[in-house]
Amino acid sequence: MLNFDEKVYLKNGEITYETREQIEQIAQKIHEEGFKNIFFISVGGSIAIMWPIQEILKQITEIPVYAEQAAEIILTGHKQLTKDSLVIMASKSGNTKETVAAAEWCQENNYRVVSLVGKEESPLATASNWIIPNLAKNGVEFEYMQLFLLLFKLLEYRGEFPDYSKFADQIKTLPENLLRAKEKFDPIADEIARKYYKENYNIWIGSGEMWGEVYLFSMCILEEMQWIRTKAVTSAEFFHGTLELVEKDVPVFLVKGEGKRRESDNRVEQFCRQFTDKLTVIDTKDYELKGIDDKFRWILAPTISTTILVDRLAQHYQKYTGHDMEDYRYYRQFAY
Amino acid sequence: MLNFDEKVYLKNGEITYETREQIEQIAQKIHEEGFKNIFFISVGGSIAIMWPIQEILKQITEIPVYAEQAAEIILTGHKQLTKDSLVIMASKSGNTKETVAAAEWCQENNYRVVSLVGKEESPLATASNWIIPNLAKNGVEFEYMQLFLLLFKLLEYRGEFPDYSKFADQIKTLPENLLRAKEKFDPIADEIARKYYKENYNIWIGSGEMWGEVYLFSMCILEEMQWIRTKAVTSAEFFHGTLELVEKDVPVFLVKGEGKRRESDNRVEQFCRQFTDKLTVIDTKDYELKGIDDKFRWILAPTISTTILVDRLAQHYQKYTGHDMEDYRYYRQFAY
Repeated sequence: MLNFDEKVYLKNGEITYETREQIEQIAQKIHEEGFKNIFFISVGGSIAIMWPIQEILKQITEIPVYAEQAAEIILTGHKQLTKDSLVIMASKSGNTKETVAAAEWCQENNYRVVSLVGKEESPLATASNWIIPNLAKNGVEFEYMQLFLLLFKLLEYRGEFPDYSKFADQIKTLPENLLRAKEKFDPIADEIARKYYKENYNIWIGSGEMWGEVYLFSMCILEEMQWIRTKAVTSAEFFHGTLELVEKDVPVFLVKGEGKRRESDNRVEQFCRQFTDKLTVIDTKDYELKGIDDKFRWILAPTISTTILVDRLAQHYQKYTGHDMEDYRYYRQFAY
Repeated sequence: MLNFDEKVYLKNGEITYETREQIEQIAQKIHEEGFKNIFFISVGGSIAIMWPIQEILKQITEIPVYAEQAAEIILTGHKQLTKDSLVIMASKSGNTKETVAAAEWCQENNYRVVSLVGKEESPLATASNWIIPNLAKNGVEFEYMQLFLLLFKLLEYRGEFPDYSKFADQIKTLPENLLRAKEKFDPIADEIARKYYKENYNIWIGSGEMWGEVYLFSMCILEEMQWIRTKAVTSAEFFHGTLELVEKDVPVFLVKGEGKRRESDNRVEQFCRQFTDKLTVIDTKDYELKGIDDKFRWILAPTISTTILVDRLAQHYQKYTGHDMEDYRYYRQFAY
């Protein structure tokens, strides 16, 4: 596959899964200390992958879960955010400006922070109470895996995720499954990118636990790394505005998950099939997860979409546009 | 002013303010019954104007506040949504498909619903425990007024908004103030619309209590009613993707409020001044609110932006594009 090393990928899967015990120990400590709510606080792609988990948690835990932008919460505070809260953050580099500032602000206020961080010696790690080493070279799916382990272990203690052991055992096979998903999707990615790389406006749609994925791919890949204009909208919101922009030649991408909101996605699909000739449906159901129970699929669906979109589709876009994904106009080029 | 009747507007303000007592009685009943959290549930523009209130409430009440899409919550439920919740809904027509379905679902589950509704004999009214008649012909600001009265009265009972009486007394003058804001902005609206009506891609930015406004104007006016492509993004998120799309000739609209996130907005402004020649800043600070304490301005800022954007700017866009705002391709044209 284009720009892809299978061995490195599986190795990244292994070193991620090896953190399971460490994550479970952190979960145990947090459980023993207790917490009354959860705050996901980060920026960009890191907060985007927390939203699916927030959506999943809404359906399975009595614990209130909030997600806030790092740059904003330090300005406003939040009445629910107290010493009894658990704050979860992530930054691959460990030095994302807004996230580090928020972690330091949490520290000053004695809010407990657990962070996924790529570098153990980094400002974010220093400002966190607990750190989960996110050492995989890349692959958003590995961050999902670690967040799932942490959150579902916490819920297991509360009696809200009794299948934790089975889930945690089974996701050991996730990297191999995702590798097969990549292989299956790779020629499709090539075709999609070839067909649409010149389009300078694309509508991206998805809902619930897939929304973060739609947001991530459209904003952090297409906009930031490929300078391609997008409009991202949820399946429910689509019908209250953006639908009017659908025309025969307007590209629409629908990312379907496997949760309860799939019905909303189906409604979008049915509508768009009639009114654009450029509809692309990305459906996680098309990808097998061998050795993993079907009941976990809706939870794992974002790992499938991320592995095929943020990795495969992005690589093929880059190939056709000739725009190096690390070539930025402004981002991280100078202070602003 | 273009397509505007001053007398009708002030009359709408009056009939809205006349509901104060009725709203306070509803608040009293709800307070007596008690509630452990608040769910805003609606769609499109109606949920968009609840987001600013959610953002404001985060900063002043211990009561957890959630906002959910009507079409989604009936599919997923939400662990925090129980018989102890207070559900707040709105639909001008009283027959918005998803909102009515959600209200009926709430009724089946014995979740208590209070609705802002334009028609007292409508499916939404029938499915609600309490209704607040939203009889003003149009004007999103009047819905804000009613929501403010309801929510802040509830908070007054909890000791979290001790200034309620002063606030409620003072906003009697809001319609006159907003009329003056419209008059001041009208020539600016004309200039903005004339300059940008042909642009088929516009970045709209705002944050916190202004985000709903940015979402509403870009999606429900420009996209739905003018078929103009937009990307709406919050000030904090802008720096993690969309910034890369800013170029000298890309129109960027920044809506600045007066709350604590204004600092984020300033950062966006500073950045965009350097990299686009087409920056428009809409700043609610430019509009006086005579007879209203300064400490209430950050709360009332969305009423200013809505009156100048959703009314004035929309009218001038319509004038230049020649696209009738009620001319839809699909929306409410047939079942889908």
